[in-house]
Amino acid sequence: MMSQRDRSDLKAFFEPDSVAVFGSLREGFGLGYGMVRNLRQFGYSGKIYPISPFHSEVMGMKACSSVDEVVEPIEAAIVITPPPTVPGIVGQCAHKGVKAVIIVSENFAEAGGDGVRYQKQLEDIARRTGIRIIGPNTVGVFNPETGFLTNPYILVQDKIRKGGVAYCSQTGSVGLAAKPLEERFYPVRLLCDIGNKCDVDESDVLNYLADDQHTKAVAMHIENAKDGRKFLEAAQSVVTRKPLLLIKGGKSEAGAEAMTSHTASLAGNEQVYDAVMKQVGALRLSSWEEYWEVPRVFNSQPLPGGNRVAIITGSGGLGVTVIDVAVESGLVMAKFSSATREKLRKLSPRLGGNPVDFGPVLSVADDPFVVQREIIETVLKDENVDCVAASLYAGFDALIPHIVATFQGLREQATKTMTIHLYGMKCAVLDEMSRQLEALGFPAYLDFELAVKSLGFAARYSRIRAELAQ
Amino acid sequence: MMSQRDRSDLKAFFEPDSVAVFGSLREGFGLGYGMVRNLRQFGYSGKIYPISPFHSEVMGMKACSSVDEVVEPIEAAIVITPPPTVPGIVGQCAHKGVKAVIIVSENFAEAGGDGVRYQKQLEDIARRTGIRIIGPNTVGVFNPETGFLTNPYILVQDKIRKGGVAYCSQTGSVGLAAKPLEERFYPVRLLCDIGNKCDVDESDVLNYLADDQHTKAVAMHIENAKDGRKFLEAAQSVVTRKPLLLIKGGKSEAGAEAMTSHTASLAGNEQVYDAVMKQVGALRLSSWEEYWEVPRVFNSQPLPGGNRVAIITGSGGLGVTVIDVAVESGLVMAKFSSATREKLRKLSPRLGGNPVDFGPVLSVADDPFVVQREIIETVLKDENVDCVAASLYAGFDALIPHIVATFQGLREQATKTMTIHLYGMKCAVLDEMSRQLEALGFPAYLDFELAVKSLGFAARYSRIRAELAQ
Repeated sequence: MMSQRDRSDLKAFFEPDSVAVFGSLREGFGLGYGMVRNLRQFGYSGKIYPISPFHSEVMGMKACSSVDEVVEPIEAAIVITPPPTVPGIVGQCAHKGVKAVIIVSENFAEAGGDGVRYQKQLEDIARRTGIRIIGPNTVGVFNPETGFLTNPYILVQDKIRKGGVAYCSQTGSVGLAAKPLEERFYPVRLLCDIGNKCDVDESDVLNYLADDQHTKAVAMHIENAKDGRKFLEAAQSVVTRKPLLLIKGGKSEAGAEAMTSHTASLAGNEQVYDAVMKQVGALRLSSWEEYWEVPRVFNSQPLPGGNRVAIITGSGGLGVTVIDVAVESGLVMAKFSSATREKLRKLSPRLGGNPVDFGPVLSVADDPFVVQREIIETVLKDENVDCVAASLYAGFDALIPHIVATFQGLREQATKTMTIHLYGMKCAVLDEMSRQLEALGFPAYLDFELAVKSLGFAARYSRIRAELAQ
Repeated sequence: MMSQRDRSDLKAFFEPDSVAVFGSLREGFGLGYGMVRNLRQFGYSGKIYPISPFHSEVMGMKACSSVDEVVEPIEAAIVITPPPTVPGIVGQCAHKGVKAVIIVSENFAEAGGDGVRYQKQLEDIARRTGIRIIGPNTVGVFNPETGFLTNPYILVQDKIRKGGVAYCSQTGSVGLAAKPLEERFYPVRLLCDIGNKCDVDESDVLNYLADDQHTKAVAMHIENAKDGRKFLEAAQSVVTRKPLLLIKGGKSEAGAEAMTSHTASLAGNEQVYDAVMKQVGALRLSSWEEYWEVPRVFNSQPLPGGNRVAIITGSGGLGVTVIDVAVESGLVMAKFSSATREKLRKLSPRLGGNPVDFGPVLSVADDPFVVQREIIETVLKDENVDCVAASLYAGFDALIPHIVATFQGLREQATKTMTIHLYGMKCAVLDEMSRQLEALGFPAYLDFELAVKSLGFAARYSRIRAELAQ
C-alpha cells in the first residue's frame, strides 16, 4: 500500500514527460488519432507513443503494436479503447512501469453489466501494482502550461493561458470545451474530470492541489465523496492553504436519484458534504456560473482584511440592487472615514456616501478619467474599506487606454481586493477591456452582481483563514 | 384631469412623428448634438427640430432659437439643458401642443436643493396643461422599430433588432448601452427608464404595455411604486395578457437606505410589492441576469401546458445539477410514457430516463445528428412532457448547419416550450449558432441553468394564466 503522501503525488497525470496513446489511429476519425492530434495542437513537448495493433503510423509518427515494443520508459498513458480491452492494456502499462493511466473510455460501472466487472478489474490492477488510474468514463485532464491533454475531440483552440485556478469536476461537460476559456481569460491552472473514480478520487486530487504551489484556488464539482473522512481531511488540507469552492449536484430528491445512475456512485453524503462546508471552511457555490467566475478573484487579487465593501458605480439604481447582493454575500457596506467623505464632497457635494454614484460627477467633469481615478483611489485608501467593486462603462475603443492607465496607476498601490464590472454595447470592446484589466491583475466581470459576490467569497475565505491561524 | 385610459396612451413617447431637441448643439460635445446624431444614426425617420438659442445649425440642419419658431406641429420633445431652464422649456412645449417630453437632465429632486423646486414646477405644468413628462434624471426611451431614442452619449451601434420584450427600469444603467443587445440577440420591444417620475410612473408604463400588441413580456425594475393601488391594478392588467417579471432593489436594510437617496423616492413599499407578486401573479426576478435573459423565452416560444420538464444533455453530471435548478424553479421531472421509453431504449439500452443523457449514444452513432433529432422529437412528442431544455455542443462551425437543420424540422411541429443551452470554446461559433437558433424562434442560452430557469418562469406564468381564466 502506498502512503497517503505518495498517493497524493499525481504529477505524472498533469505533467508527464512521455505518454502512450491507446486508441484507434484511423486518420481523421480515430479517437487515438484525435488524442495525438490534440497533443500536438496544444504544443505538448513530451514524447508521444501511439499504440495500436491496426496501424503502424499516425501523423508521420511510428506506432507500436504494444507498449512492450517501446524501449524507453513511459510515464503516462491515455486509453480510449473498448472496455473489454482496457484491463489488459492497463495491466501491460503497469508491467511497463507507467505511473499514471487516464481511461477516457466509457461504458464501465455507469453502464452496468460487464462494465461493472471491467471496472472492478481496473481497481484490482491499481491496488495490486500501484499504477494510478483516473477514470474510466472521463475526459481526463488538461494542463495549459505543458499542453498535456486527454481530450480526443475536435478542439478549435490551440492554447489556454496559464493561471492559478484548478477546476475539477465529476463530469467532462465543464472541461476544456465547455467555455471560451482563452477568449474570456479564465486563469486555468488545470482541468480535471475524475469520472468513475476507480482509483484516483476527489480526495487524492485535493491533496495534490493543496501541495501544488501554482494552484491559488480550487473549484470542485462533486456528486459524492467516495470516503467521507478522507474527503474531509483533504478538504481541510486545501483550506489551510487556499480557498476550496464546491458545487454539488443532487440537492433535490430528483437530482439525487438521477445522480445514482450517472457515475455509478452512491448518492447522498449530504451529511459529509455539509460537514466539509461547516467544519472545514469550504465555500459552497450555488451555480455553474459561480463555479467558473468566482475563483477568478483569488487568481490575482489579495485577500481582503475584512468584509467592508465600497461600491463605486455610475448608476444609483444599479448601486441599490447590488447592495442587496453584497449583504446576501456576507459583506457590509463600508462607512467611509470623515477624511474620505470630505475629499469626495470636494469633488461633488453629492458624493460622500457608499455606494459612490459617480455618474453625476463624471458627466460634468473636465477630465472624467482624472476624477474617476481620484474617486477610486480615495475609496481604496480609506481605512474603513476592505474591498471595492467598481462598475465602469466600456462602451467604445477610445475609452480603453484611459481605463487601463487608471488601473496601471492603481495596481502599484493596491493592497485591497478589487473587482470590476464592465458594461457596454460591443462584445469586442468588452473583451479587449477585460483582457487588459486581467493582464493588470484586476478581474473584470460582465455582471455587477458577480463582481460583488466574488468579493463576498474572498471576504469569507479571509475570515476562515484568520480563524484557522488562531 | 385625464382619464386613466388617456393617461396610459404613451404612444407619443415611443413613436413620435416629430421631435424637438433642447440641448447644447456644440459640434461633437454638446448633448443636444449627441441626441440629433444618435437619432440619425439609428435611422429615426420622423422630423427632428433642434432648438438652441446659441446655435443656428447642427449637422446641416437648421436650428431654431425657440420652439415657437417652428410652424409645424411637434409631437415630442427631448430636453437636456440645465435644471433652471427646464420648467420654462416644458411650459413652451405645452403651449406649442407637444404631447410628450422626456427630460434627460439630472440634478432635480434626487439632488435636493433647488432641484426639488424645479421638479415641483414640472409636476405642476404636467397637471395643469396635460403635457406628459418622462423623467427628469433619465436616459429616457428607445424604440428599435422606429429608431427613436433619447440617449445623447456616443453609441457604437446603429440598430437593435426588434423583438417582443419591453425592458423598463428606474435606472439608465440597464438601458441601451448596458449590454451587447444586438450582438447577443436580445428581442427588444422597447427600453424605458422612468427616472424621477415627476409625471409618468411605472403604472402608466404598465398600462401602456398591457395594451401594446407587440409587447409579449414586460421586464421591470422598480425601486418603489408611486401609488400602490394604481400599481397593483396596472400590474394586474399586464398579467392577464402577458407575463410581468419584476426586479426590485432595497430588499436589505442597507439597500433600502441607499434607495431613498437615489431617485428621491420613499423607500419601502415591500408590502405593496409582495402583494403584487402574490395577488396579481407578477413573477419575481432575482438577478439582473434573469432580468435580461428570462423574458427571452416568452418572445418566441409557446407557453407550456404544465410544469413537467424533460432535460436532454450530453453530460450526466450537468444533468444532475440542473435537476436541482429545475426543482427550485417549480418544475418537476417528466416521467416519460412507456412508448417514449421504448423508443429511446431502441436507440440505446441506456436511454429511457429523464434527464436524457445522449452523450454515450451520440459518440457511437453513425450519424449523431439523426439520432440527436430523433431523441429530441421523441421527447417533445411525449404527452407527459410540457417543456424541454436541451444542452448542445456548438464547438466548431461545421456543426452549425446540422443543428440548424434539426431545429428547422422541429419548428414545424413544435407546440411545446423549448430552450437550448449551447457550449463550446469559441465565442464566434456560439454567437453564430445562437443567432441562427434565435432566428428560428428557439432561445439559446450560454448557461444551462438559465435555460432551465426560463422554462420554470414560463410554467409558472402558464399556471397563473390558467387560474385567471377560471
